[in-house]
Amino acid sequence: MNKTQWHGIIPPLVTPLKDNDTLDIEALERLVNHVITGGVHGIFLLGTTGEGPSLSRELKYRLVEEACRIVNHRVPLLAGITDTSFTESIALANHAALHGADAVVAAPPYYMPPSQPELLDYIKHLAPKLPLPLFLYNMPAMTKVNIDVDTVKRAADIPNVIGIKDSSCSMIYVHELIDAMKNRDFPVLIGPEEMLGESVLLGAQGGVNGGANILPALYVSMYHAAESGDAPRMRKLQADIMRLREIYRVGHYASSGIKGIKCALSIMGICGDYMAEPFQHFYEPERERVAQILAALR
Amino acid sequence: MNKTQWHGIIPPLVTPLKDNDTLDIEALERLVNHVITGGVHGIFLLGTTGEGPSLSRELKYRLVEEACRIVNHRVPLLAGITDTSFTESIALANHAALHGADAVVAAPPYYMPPSQPELLDYIKHLAPKLPLPLFLYNMPAMTKVNIDVDTVKRAADIPNVIGIKDSSCSMIYVHELIDAMKNRDFPVLIGPEEMLGESVLLGAQGGVNGGANILPALYVSMYHAAESGDAPRMRKLQADIMRLREIYRVGHYASSGIKGIKCALSIMGICGDYMAEPFQHFYEPERERVAQILAALR
Amino acid sequence: MNKTQWHGIIPPLVTPLKDNDTLDIEALERLVNHVITGGVHGIFLLGTTGEGPSLSRELKYRLVEEACRIVNHRVPLLAGITDTSFTESIALANHAALHGADAVVAAPPYYMPPSQPELLDYIKHLAPKLPLPLFLYNMPAMTKVNIDVDTVKRAADIPNVIGIKDSSCSMIYVHELIDAMKNRDFPVLIGPEEMLGESVLLGAQGGVNGGANILPALYVSMYHAAESGDAPRMRKLQADIMRLREIYRVGHYASSGIKGIKCALSIMGICGDYMAEPFQHFYEPERERVAQILAALR
Amino acid sequence: MNKTQWHGIIPPLVTPLKDNDTLDIEALERLVNHVITGGVHGIFLLGTTGEGPSLSRELKYRLVEEACRIVNHRVPLLAGITDTSFTESIALANHAALHGADAVVAAPPYYMPPSQPELLDYIKHLAPKLPLPLFLYNMPAMTKVNIDVDTVKRAADIPNVIGIKDSSCSMIYVHELIDAMKNRDFPVLIGPEEMLGESVLLGAQGGVNGGANILPALYVSMYHAAESGDAPRMRKLQADIMRLREIYRVGHYASSGIKGIKCALSIMGICGDYMAEPFQHFYEPERERVAQILAALR
Repeated sequence: MNKTQWHGIIPPLVTPLKDNDTLDIEALERLVNHVITGGVHGIFLLGTTGEGPSLSRELKYRLVEEACRIVNHRVPLLAGITDTSFTESIALANHAALHGADAVVAAPPYYMPPSQPELLDYIKHLAPKLPLPLFLYNMPAMTKVNIDVDTVKRAADIPNVIGIKDSSCSMIYVHELIDAMKNRDFPVLIGPEEMLGESVLLGAQGGVNGGANILPALYVSMYHAAESGDAPRMRKLQADIMRLREIYRVGHYASSGIKGIKCALSIMGICGDYMAEPFQHFYEPERERVAQILAALR
Repeated sequence: MNKTQWHGIIPPLVTPLKDNDTLDIEALERLVNHVITGGVHGIFLLGTTGEGPSLSRELKYRLVEEACRIVNHRVPLLAGITDTSFTESIALANHAALHGADAVVAAPPYYMPPSQPELLDYIKHLAPKLPLPLFLYNMPAMTKVNIDVDTVKRAADIPNVIGIKDSSCSMIYVHELIDAMKNRDFPVLIGPEEMLGESVLLGAQGGVNGGANILPALYVSMYHAAESGDAPRMRKLQADIMRLREIYRVGHYASSGIKGIKCALSIMGICGDYMAEPFQHFYEPERERVAQILAALR
Repeated sequence: MNKTQWHGIIPPLVTPLKDNDTLDIEALERLVNHVITGGVHGIFLLGTTGEGPSLSRELKYRLVEEACRIVNHRVPLLAGITDTSFTESIALANHAALHGADAVVAAPPYYMPPSQPELLDYIKHLAPKLPLPLFLYNMPAMTKVNIDVDTVKRAADIPNVIGIKDSSCSMIYVHELIDAMKNRDFPVLIGPEEMLGESVLLGAQGGVNGGANILPALYVSMYHAAESGDAPRMRKLQADIMRLREIYRVGHYASSGIKGIKCALSIMGICGDYMAEPFQHFYEPERERVAQILAALR
Repeated sequence: MNKTQWHGIIPPLVTPLKDNDTLDIEALERLVNHVITGGVHGIFLLGTTGEGPSLSRELKYRLVEEACRIVNHRVPLLAGITDTSFTESIALANHAALHGADAVVAAPPYYMPPSQPELLDYIKHLAPKLPLPLFLYNMPAMTKVNIDVDTVKRAADIPNVIGIKDSSCSMIYVHELIDAMKNRDFPVLIGPEEMLGESVLLGAQGGVNGGANILPALYVSMYHAAESGDAPRMRKLQADIMRLREIYRVGHYASSGIKGIKCALSIMGICGDYMAEPFQHFYEPERERVAQILAALR
C-alpha cells in the first residue's frame, strides 16, 4: 500500500479472551466481521484498547496470525509492536509481516521515558530494522512521553515512517500536526473519538476510535460527514458519539473505557468480556448501565 | 530465608551488555564480585538501573541464570519480574526459582495504570502463582501509579508478600510505610540513595541504591552508621553520597542516572557502558566529567 | 443584557503599562478602538492575557474605570475579578458595576486549590454577592483546578451565573460542556484560539482569544465562517491563526504568549510592551522574530 | 537580627477569624501566647497555614499590626508577603516593617508561573525594594514553580535574601539545599513536619510546621532531639508527629490539613475554626475524629 491509502476509520480492535492467556478465535472472527460489515477502512491490532501490552508474547503472536487469516486482506491491517524491549518489537514486526500485516504501529518505550532526541534516535534505529512501514503512536497518558511535533517532522523524513496515530487528546497538538504535515503524504489518525469530526474536517485522514468496535458505522458516518464538510450532520453524529462514550464512564477507574467496550461487545453477543490482568470485567450494576446506554443508541 | 534476613544494601545491579541483545558474562562476573567484596547484603537483578524492561525475554532469562551461577548463594538474590504481562511475570519468576534466586520483585504493570483496588487485586492474583516470595516495588515515576500505604498494608497480609522497595522519592511516604509496618516483619528498602541514611535511622531495613554498583562500601558504611545512630558519621557519608550522585546529573535527560552508573563502571574497568535501547551511552564531554567526579571520590 | 447576547469574539484585553504600576491610558484608548474597529463583540478586562493577577488593586480599579469610559457601551464589557481573596473579588465587582461593566468573570481561587464540592460552594457564596452576572473561567493551567462539567452544570442553576470561558485547552471538555449545556442558555466561550473554529462550528458561542488583540478581524472572520459552517474558509483561516500563534512561541518560557502579544502590539504602534512583574518584555532577537511573523501575516 | 538567629521551630500561625473578613484579636492573643509558651523560636504570619492569600488586604494589614503588638519582640516575627502583584508585596512588607516585624517571606508569584531565570530576576527586583530581610518560600504545590537549587544559590548572593523555607516535600531537594549552603550562613527551614527530624539532624536550621500551632512543645522537642543527634528520642517523637498528622487527613480534600489545625485549636479553646473562603470548617463526624486524635496525643 502507499501512504495515501491510510485513511478512514481503523478500529483499535479489542482482543477477545477466554482467559488471561487464551485467545477466543471464534469471537475474534465475529468481531472482525462486525467491524468490516460496519464499513471500517482498516483494523489495528494490539493497541491500548486491544490490551496489547498486557498480553504474553505467545498470545500476541497468535492474535496476529489469526487476525491476518480472518481479515484476509479485506481491509489493511496494522499490528501494534509497542514494547519496552527493542528486540521484542522487531521480532513481533517480523511475525506480523510473515503473516500478512500491512504496517506496524509503535508508541515510545513506556517504562523509561526517553527525551525527544533519544526518542528520535530510537525511531531512527527501529524503522530500518522493520519489515513493514511504521506508524508512530503518540499516547502520552500511557508512555509519559509526548512525541513533539518537531520530532514527528524529523521522523517523517525516515523512509519507513509513514504516519501517526495521535491519542494525546490535545486538539492543539492535532492542529500543529496537520499544519506541519499539510504538504506531505503523512496521514494523521485521531484516537479520541470526541475529536474525530473536527480533526477530519480540518485535515486529519481518519480515526482509530475504540467505539468503532461497538458501532463501526457511527464512526464511518462521522468520517464521511466531516470529509464532506457537512456541519449539521456532524453535530447530530457528535451527539451520538457523546452518548456512546458514556459507556466509558460507567466504571470508577481509568480502566473504565476498555472495560466498557468489552462489556458492550459482550452484551451484543460479539465477544466475551474477559479482561487481561490487571483488570477485571464489569459486574452489576455497571453492566446493566452499559446495556441501557447501548439500548438507547441502537 | 525468612523476612528478617532482608536488610542492608542490595544494589540494583547494572546489566552489562555487549550489544543490544548480548549479555557480557565476564563483566557480570566482575561486577557481582565487586559489589560482594564491597560488603553488600544482597543483589537485585532486572530493576530500573538494570534496564530490566528494556531487555528481551531471552536476555532476561540468561541474566538470571548467569547471575545465580555467579552469586552462588554468597548473598541473597532478588529477580525483578515487573512486566505489563501477568503471564510473562510468572514465567520469569519460575525461571528465577529454577536457577536459585531467593525472591522476586514486582512493580505494578506500567502501561495501563491500575487504580488502588485493581492493583491490590493484581497482587492478590499474582502472589499465589509465584514460586518465590514477593517484594513490592513502588516506582511511580515509571509506573505512573503509587502503591498507596493502605494498599501496602493490605498486600502485606498476603502470605507470599514479604516487603517493599520504595523508589517514590517521598520521605513522607517512607515515614508512613515505616509507621504502618513498625510492628510487622515487613522490610522497607529505600531506592533513592540521598534518603538512605535517615530512612534506616528512623526504621527502614536498608537500601537498593544504584550508586552501590560503583562504590558499594560507601552505601554499606552509611547503612551501618545509620543503624547505629551515628549522626556525625552520617553527615560525612551523606556529603560523599551527594558527590557521587553528581554522576547522575552529568547528562541532560532523565536517563542521565543509569547512563552515569554504566559510564562510571566502564571507567573503573568493571563493565562496558553499552546501553539498551532507547538509550545510548555517554560520549565526551560527559564521560570526562564522570571520570573527574569519580577521581575526586576515590 | 441577557445571556444570548454573549457571543462572538471577546478579546482578553492586554493591559497597557507605562511601568510596573502605571496604566498607559492613551494606549488603552488606541487598543480598545483597534479591537472594536476589528469587529469584536465584547471586551474582557483583567484576564490572564491582561496580566490581571499581577496588577495592584489600585491599577485594576483604574483600568476598569478607564476602560468603561473608553468603551462607552459600544460593546459589552466583562471585568475579571479572579482573586484568592473572596473579599477583594467582591469589591472589584462592585467597582466594575459602578463604572458600567456588563458582567464579571471569575476563575477559582488559585493559591489553595478547592475540591469540586468546595468550588461549587464558593461559587454559590460568591454569585449572590455580586452586582453583575458572573461568567465562570476555567483555567486549570493557572489555578491547578479544573471546573468539572458536573460542577458547571450545578453552577449554571445559580441565578447569577450566566456562562463559562474555557481555557482548559481540552477539546474533549469543550464537547462535554456543549453537550451538557445544549438545551440551556449558557454561553460557552473558548480561550485557545487554535480551537475556536471547531468549537463554534460544533456549538460554542464564541472565543476569548489573545490574538484578537493583534488581528481582531481574523478571529471575527473565523467566528463567522464557523457559525455558517463554511469548512473551506475555516481551513484557510485556521492556517492564518496557526501562523499568528508562532508569535507566542518566540520566547523560551511559558510567558512567551503574553509577551508576544504585547511585543506585536508595540511593533504595531498600539501600546508599549512593558510587562508587569514577574515578566520582562522581549528583547532582540525575539522582537525581530515577532516583527517577521507579523509582516508575513498582514 | 543576623541570619544565624533564624533557627528552631517557627510555627506558620493560623489566622483566627470571626467571619470571612474579621480578625479575632483575642484568639490571636491566646494563640500567640500558646506557641510562645510552648517554646517556639519565632512566628511566621500569613503563610499557607495562615490562609494568607485568602485574606483581604485590610485583614492582612490588621493581622500584622496586631501580631506585632502581641508578640512584642518576645520571638522574631516573619510576615508572609507572597502575592501575585509585586506592588502589593512591597506595600505589605513596608507595613510589616513599620509595625516591627523582623523579616518577610515570599513565595514565587503564583498565578503565572515564572521560569527559573524569570524567577531569579523577580527576586533580584524585589529584594532591594524591601525594608526587611527576605526568606524565600518554596511551595511548588501551590505556586506550580519549584525554586531550583541553582536559583536559590544565585538568590543567596543578593544581600537582602537571608534564607529559605522549603515546603517542597522533597527530601532530595532538602539534601541538595543543605549541601549547597553548608558553607554559607543561609538557614534552611523545613515545612513538612514529617521531615523535620532528619532535616535538622542532617543540617537544616529548623522547621516551619503547621502542627506547632497545636502542640508547639512536640516540635520543639524534635528540634532539640535532632540537633543533638538523639536517634532513639527522634524515633519516639516521630511516632507522635505521625499521630498528630492524622488530624490533617480527617477530611476528604487537600484542604484537610489547614481545616484540621483550626479544628484542633477550636477544640482546645484557643481560637474558633472559621475558615476563609473558599473553605468551610469541619463538621461532624470530622470534628469528633479530630477530638479523638487530640485526646490520644495529650
